[in-house]
Amino acid sequence: MNTKYEGFETPGITVDLSIFTVNETRLKVMLVRRAEVPFQGYWSLPGGFLKTSESLDAAAQRVLCEKSGVSDVYMEQLYTFGDPKRDPRSRVITVAYIALIPWQSLPQPASEKVTDLTWASVDALPKLAFDHREILSYAVKRLRAKVSYSNIVYGLMPKQFRLSELQSMYETIIDDKLDKRNFRKQMLATGLLKETGKKELAGAHRPAMLYQFKSKEIVFFN
Amino acid sequence: MNTKYEGFETPGITVDLSIFTVNETRLKVMLVRRAEVPFQGYWSLPGGFLKTSESLDAAAQRVLCEKSGVSDVYMEQLYTFGDPKRDPRSRVITVAYIALIPWQSLPQPASEKVTDLTWASVDALPKLAFDHREILSYAVKRLRAKVSYSNIVYGLMPKQFRLSELQSMYETIIDDKLDKRNFRKQMLATGLLKETGKKELAGAHRPAMLYQFKSKEIVFFN
Repeated sequence: MNTKYEGFETPGITVDLSIFTVNETRLKVMLVRRAEVPFQGYWSLPGGFLKTSESLDAAAQRVLCEKSGVSDVYMEQLYTFGDPKRDPRSRVITVAYIALIPWQSLPQPASEKVTDLTWASVDALPKLAFDHREILSYAVKRLRAKVSYSNIVYGLMPKQFRLSELQSMYETIIDDKLDKRNFRKQMLATGLLKETGKKELAGAHRPAMLYQFKSKEIVFFN
Repeated sequence: MNTKYEGFETPGITVDLSIFTVNETRLKVMLVRRAEVPFQGYWSLPGGFLKTSESLDAAAQRVLCEKSGVSDVYMEQLYTFGDPKRDPRSRVITVAYIALIPWQSLPQPASEKVTDLTWASVDALPKLAFDHREILSYAVKRLRAKVSYSNIVYGLMPKQFRLSELQSMYETIIDDKLDKRNFRKQMLATGLLKETGKKELAGAHRPAMLYQFKSKEIVFFN
């Protein structure tokens, strides 16, 4: 123990990830089953301890890649949870991240150890380890808020899509229905989309224009 | 050293606060002069090490109260900065917070040790210790973004105010001019304000209605 820090905390640091995808019009989050105590056998958010000389973002990327098999996806730091009692072992502070993966980009099956990893609907969660329920609630809240004032939804969409698919994505995330005409008008007014020039047949309807996001950087609008 | 954590970080944890106020139509942030190495004599954001068994929010409140003399003000966690090289002594991760104080609520003078504490305009900053310039840039960006989709500005306003004073506050924060008619219309349309029923003389103009925010909790609009 470094005496310089006497009376002060030198806690373990973890990163915990709320990795979202949308499949079958459900917002889903990756959960992993804990092999060890505490909370052995419980589902939890994927995470891990910060390694020596590792940056927080690098640790989050490492966990993302290990668990999902993908790396080049939208990720942002969410919030840091530091309640003194959140880990029964010792003081552990966790820096929470959000990551978004288009369902189409996920390797199938998403993991070799399939029984230890699942994609759970955020409205039908099992009991979670630690304060992961609280962290996940905060992550869902952030995602729901952010779709209304940014292009963050691009992180969940395939490269090209019909406007009706984009509307369905929004409806799934905010868990509400949107008016088709208003949605199209407002979405196009943001200036964030561009036509690909290609059209796609969708059921019995006329071929619909395929769009893509102009930017794969986060942009805010209002 | 706990061998359980070998290969993992057990860093010092600090909180650092960007405490904002607005005075003389300038967005200002509290800076304190460092008495000790490293960066001795440099200006820095007020902060401190996390104490044993102290929550992050409690540490931020403690620093806020010690430095500003006030406690019941708007505060939110901003972001956690954990670059491995950000502190030349050893690994220190800092959880950054934003606090907002109405100028009228500040004890005057704001500190006994006046030479060690200043309110600097965010557009005329001295050289800052550590990565505090980066932290502060992020804090200003968050504040500027958040005024456009929430009522966060209440944290900087006196209890009652004329709409022209509120407009001036917005203009100071976003560093831009706003159209008076549109501002009044949009602001009243958010439903976040209520008339106090009282009017106040303002210069040579007709007495103007005094308003207040309905809620002192953060509310989002769009």
